[in-house]
Amino acid sequence: MERMRRILIIGLGLIGGSYAMALKRQGYYIIAIDNDSNTIEYALKNNIIDEGTTVVTKEFVQRAQLTIFGLYPNTMLQWIKEHYDLFEPGSLLTDVSGVKNNIVEPIQEILGDNIQFVSAHPMAGKEVYGIENADDAIFARANLIITPTEKNTKEAIETVYELGRVIGFKSISELSIIEHDKMIAFVSQLTHAIAVSLMNTSDNKHLKQYTGDSFRDLTRIAKINEEVWSELFSLNQEFLVERINEFVASLQDLKDAISANDLDKMKRLFIQSTIHRGYFDE
Amino acid sequence: MERMRRILIIGLGLIGGSYAMALKRQGYYIIAIDNDSNTIEYALKNNIIDEGTTVVTKEFVQRAQLTIFGLYPNTMLQWIKEHYDLFEPGSLLTDVSGVKNNIVEPIQEILGDNIQFVSAHPMAGKEVYGIENADDAIFARANLIITPTEKNTKEAIETVYELGRVIGFKSISELSIIEHDKMIAFVSQLTHAIAVSLMNTSDNKHLKQYTGDSFRDLTRIAKINEEVWSELFSLNQEFLVERINEFVASLQDLKDAISANDLDKMKRLFIQSTIHRGYFDE
Repeated sequence: MERMRRILIIGLGLIGGSYAMALKRQGYYIIAIDNDSNTIEYALKNNIIDEGTTVVTKEFVQRAQLTIFGLYPNTMLQWIKEHYDLFEPGSLLTDVSGVKNNIVEPIQEILGDNIQFVSAHPMAGKEVYGIENADDAIFARANLIITPTEKNTKEAIETVYELGRVIGFKSISELSIIEHDKMIAFVSQLTHAIAVSLMNTSDNKHLKQYTGDSFRDLTRIAKINEEVWSELFSLNQEFLVERINEFVASLQDLKDAISANDLDKMKRLFIQSTIHRGYFDE
Repeated sequence: MERMRRILIIGLGLIGGSYAMALKRQGYYIIAIDNDSNTIEYALKNNIIDEGTTVVTKEFVQRAQLTIFGLYPNTMLQWIKEHYDLFEPGSLLTDVSGVKNNIVEPIQEILGDNIQFVSAHPMAGKEVYGIENADDAIFARANLIITPTEKNTKEAIETVYELGRVIGFKSISELSIIEHDKMIAFVSQLTHAIAVSLMNTSDNKHLKQYTGDSFRDLTRIAKINEEVWSELFSLNQEFLVERINEFVASLQDLKDAISANDLDKMKRLFIQSTIHRGYFDE
């Protein structure tokens, strides 16, 4: 990171903007590209970045040795297809995308051997979006998952670890692309699929006055950004469908116990879920 | 309530104990029956009740004109089958049970025309149990649902409303037995069935470090008391199975969109869930 005091962020959404805030606070010089001039204006006015532009030029891109993509996965892939030749050999690129399969390897293919792309996933977020909601406090209790491949050098991976430490993540760890996408299918995508489907069983508006905390907690994430989540679900189709099938089988098992009025089986399932949930207590 | 300054509570668990605290605080004289002498001792020592016993006698029962059952539904039904003849004609009985069908009407049948049983459900709780966890602060943000039947007099129903006001519920409303059980199948039982089944898909212990708030919020209720919930599920079997089927159909619909990589359909479902969830915002 020492030789990388100037950092380029491409895409100043909630996460890109929050990265900018965190890094600028640590004394880095932040330049940014975003296709929305209002976003660049807002970020400059609020001192979130040092320089910004909507125009992609080789001169601008090459002013930084480290580039962070804050774009949605497919948008990033597209951007790199169009502009891969703007990066100087020796540059290091990283990202924030929530799914890695069919994204990381195609990008590394395009960039070739002289530019390192070390992918990472900051498991942080809010239910709101955009630079206006950027907030670097979200990283203090979040994990950064780095998903290196055999194309990455040790040095490049270490720099992304350091980036994570500078930004202030609670913990930083490594997973393979497949491990990452399987994990995310369970802890994040399946839970969103469940909350969405629960809210879609019917509008049930008339039940509002009877809902308590547990209902609200469980369905909070049913308020969902349709653009980003349809893309994430689509990219992780295979693992997510597997996880949904597993969950439905588990729910059918409980339903069978209820239908058969099998109290002993219900109790066994409740004891099991209580034990399993215990593993996740802090 | 004026002529009912003395109240009998049968079953001093979390809810029965919390009712006792709330009512004693308002100057009522609270006597209690519980089959566990440690519970009675604890309640006396901590000034939660004025008098208590483990021995069921006509003399003790008849010292109050208002009785509140803090027992599980089937235990209450059993208790009333054994002891219905201990109540003085003109007595008013109420309860706290979470399912009403197959409970309220059999009890009213047993008690006959001279004793009023006005059933009610305080939608309050904690994930812990027993008199040691009693806490009358839980009612301030909870709803009391009264489920009167044609066997109930206007005066008896009004007294249960007043009881709810004295205890300090945020709101008090009425539903029929069927409406109540349908509502509870959706807002409470289905959500518990989902959380339990999610935790039972596999132990997934190795994913602990990757879980965030939304996963923890969604699965918190998978820590579940197997005795009370197997009973509640069993009593509400029919409506709960219906709701599970509806939910599974909704999830399959989303799964089909994912499998077909139908981004437009996914987006429509996400937009719908966002709108539906909006109805439940406070």
